[in-house]
Amino acid sequence: MEFTLESPLDMHVHVREGAMLERVTPLTADHFAGAIIMPNLVPPVDNLERLLWYRDQINAAKGDATFDPLMMLFFRNYSREELEAAREHIFGIKLYPAGATTNSEAGVKELSAAEDTFALMEEMGIPLMVHGETHGFVMDREKEFLTSYAYLAEKFPKLRITMEHITTKDAVDLLDQFENLHATVTLHHLIITLNDVAGGLLNPHLFCKPIAKRPEDQEALLATALKAHPKLMFGSDSAPHPVSKKECCGCAAGLFTAPVCLPTLVELFEKHDALDNLQNFVSGNAQRIHGYTPPKTTVTLEKTGMEVPARYGDVVPYRAGETIPWAVTNVQN
Amino acid sequence: MEFTLESPLDMHVHVREGAMLERVTPLTADHFAGAIIMPNLVPPVDNLERLLWYRDQINAAKGDATFDPLMMLFFRNYSREELEAAREHIFGIKLYPAGATTNSEAGVKELSAAEDTFALMEEMGIPLMVHGETHGFVMDREKEFLTSYAYLAEKFPKLRITMEHITTKDAVDLLDQFENLHATVTLHHLIITLNDVAGGLLNPHLFCKPIAKRPEDQEALLATALKAHPKLMFGSDSAPHPVSKKECCGCAAGLFTAPVCLPTLVELFEKHDALDNLQNFVSGNAQRIHGYTPPKTTVTLEKTGMEVPARYGDVVPYRAGETIPWAVTNVQN
Repeated sequence: MEFTLESPLDMHVHVREGAMLERVTPLTADHFAGAIIMPNLVPPVDNLERLLWYRDQINAAKGDATFDPLMMLFFRNYSREELEAAREHIFGIKLYPAGATTNSEAGVKELSAAEDTFALMEEMGIPLMVHGETHGFVMDREKEFLTSYAYLAEKFPKLRITMEHITTKDAVDLLDQFENLHATVTLHHLIITLNDVAGGLLNPHLFCKPIAKRPEDQEALLATALKAHPKLMFGSDSAPHPVSKKECCGCAAGLFTAPVCLPTLVELFEKHDALDNLQNFVSGNAQRIHGYTPPKTTVTLEKTGMEVPARYGDVVPYRAGETIPWAVTNVQN
Repeated sequence: MEFTLESPLDMHVHVREGAMLERVTPLTADHFAGAIIMPNLVPPVDNLERLLWYRDQINAAKGDATFDPLMMLFFRNYSREELEAAREHIFGIKLYPAGATTNSEAGVKELSAAEDTFALMEEMGIPLMVHGETHGFVMDREKEFLTSYAYLAEKFPKLRITMEHITTKDAVDLLDQFENLHATVTLHHLIITLNDVAGGLLNPHLFCKPIAKRPEDQEALLATALKAHPKLMFGSDSAPHPVSKKECCGCAAGLFTAPVCLPTLVELFEKHDALDNLQNFVSGNAQRIHGYTPPKTTVTLEKTGMEVPARYGDVVPYRAGETIPWAVTNVQN
């Protein structure tokens, strides 16, 4: 049995820097025709020079793969001149509330102080991607941020906004209320709940931000993905950390899912008899929403089984040690 | 400044076995006049011979301290003869739903299959202590179990039932609905929420079962403790694990709080201007509820500062490395 995907896209990935970048970039580039590269380095990718340097690192690391790194600026208040210079090199700008996740200390403290830049982005057609969490109680942070999404979507009706890595039924429900509001969802939030993180023994490898929520949230996200809701895009939020930062006293947030995304998605959509919708979920929706034409690739998966390694270097992947029925067996450019 | 407590009691503690027992028992015995010793060893303490052996281990480990180990049987269906033989040696029987927490695999699968033993306990005046969690979603497990508490309290109106280590406002609200229903609460559930476990970096040292809940739950528990609600008793649920079982891939549940319980409680009750109620919370209520007279001790705390060690052997204590304003400076028998 065989299943093919045309130009799959990962609309949210972290490839880090240095040796980690060299290790993980090929694992995304081998499967995906393009991916949005998140800019939360230290210091952040918040100027064109650093962005072009970062893109060069990724292009050097991707090897022979046909892969389009979709570069993002880290949100700060930018001048018109800065945005005009950057425009042709960037896919969008990523906004982090200060302190909300890994390396976000340089993020935004008050949305109201950022409105000039939002207005410029709206005028220039630059998309805004948002890590939407407040600093409240961990299970409520996304829900509490939804009013900010609604405010932004209403105040800047031509600004194309993506709610990144949504984790709640409430966010799903908001999707249809504003034409300019879209969302990405990860692989793991389609599958896990807080029970998988902390219901038995505590599993640091499933700890991420936003944290996995309640069963009714996971069910709503999965149902929305399975029908390839036209405003929902796949974005893995694959986020590698060395094992020393996961199995320790203060474990960092993030799952490394890059190598298992496509096999797991095919397994999941097959199980729910929704394989016909997977192409739109992992590529078609993003192309249409962003008016983006990715490099043409054809990825073939077969039921030969993928044995997920215990580690990639010092990174423990999602589903480490498991055998996934589907494996990527061929990629054609 | 000085504060004294008469015969403080810890109505829920785990002292484990072997080298761990030898290490942690004195840390409880040095501060408390008595403590309920939980029976979830492997195999469980579910017969008189093993219980007497276990009590001997604890008495040998406590050193010179004036300390009364209040022994518990692990719940199974017991015959009248077994309970009659055990009666004078036990303080109560602890019921674990199978698999709900550390070493509870031998626990009860169906409450209905245990009713003969509940009836015997009721008749003989043997208290029932319960780890009240279902196997549902981790944030809902205690709330879902409340109907079982209500069922037991109603069906066995003379059975003295304790809801162990309650963590929710819902459990607090149930306390007043049945005369024969009581509760213990830990130190840490008066202070932490899920935010402290998983709101920033993941902190395995604050991972416990039942898991810390929402801010409104913590606030309700604290308010109920501060007023020394007559049906609420202090029970630390101090539960040591070696650091290798905490900072790892599958972290075990439990905080080791024994050495810091009294200093932290005095700090907390002082902060909330409720020091007058602490004696009842840590001793008076338990004495009245259980008709129990502990050995007479007088524990003096002073504001000399307690520097909490980073480790006790291979166990990381709650508040490791912090300085607590209050310290136990004298214990008189």
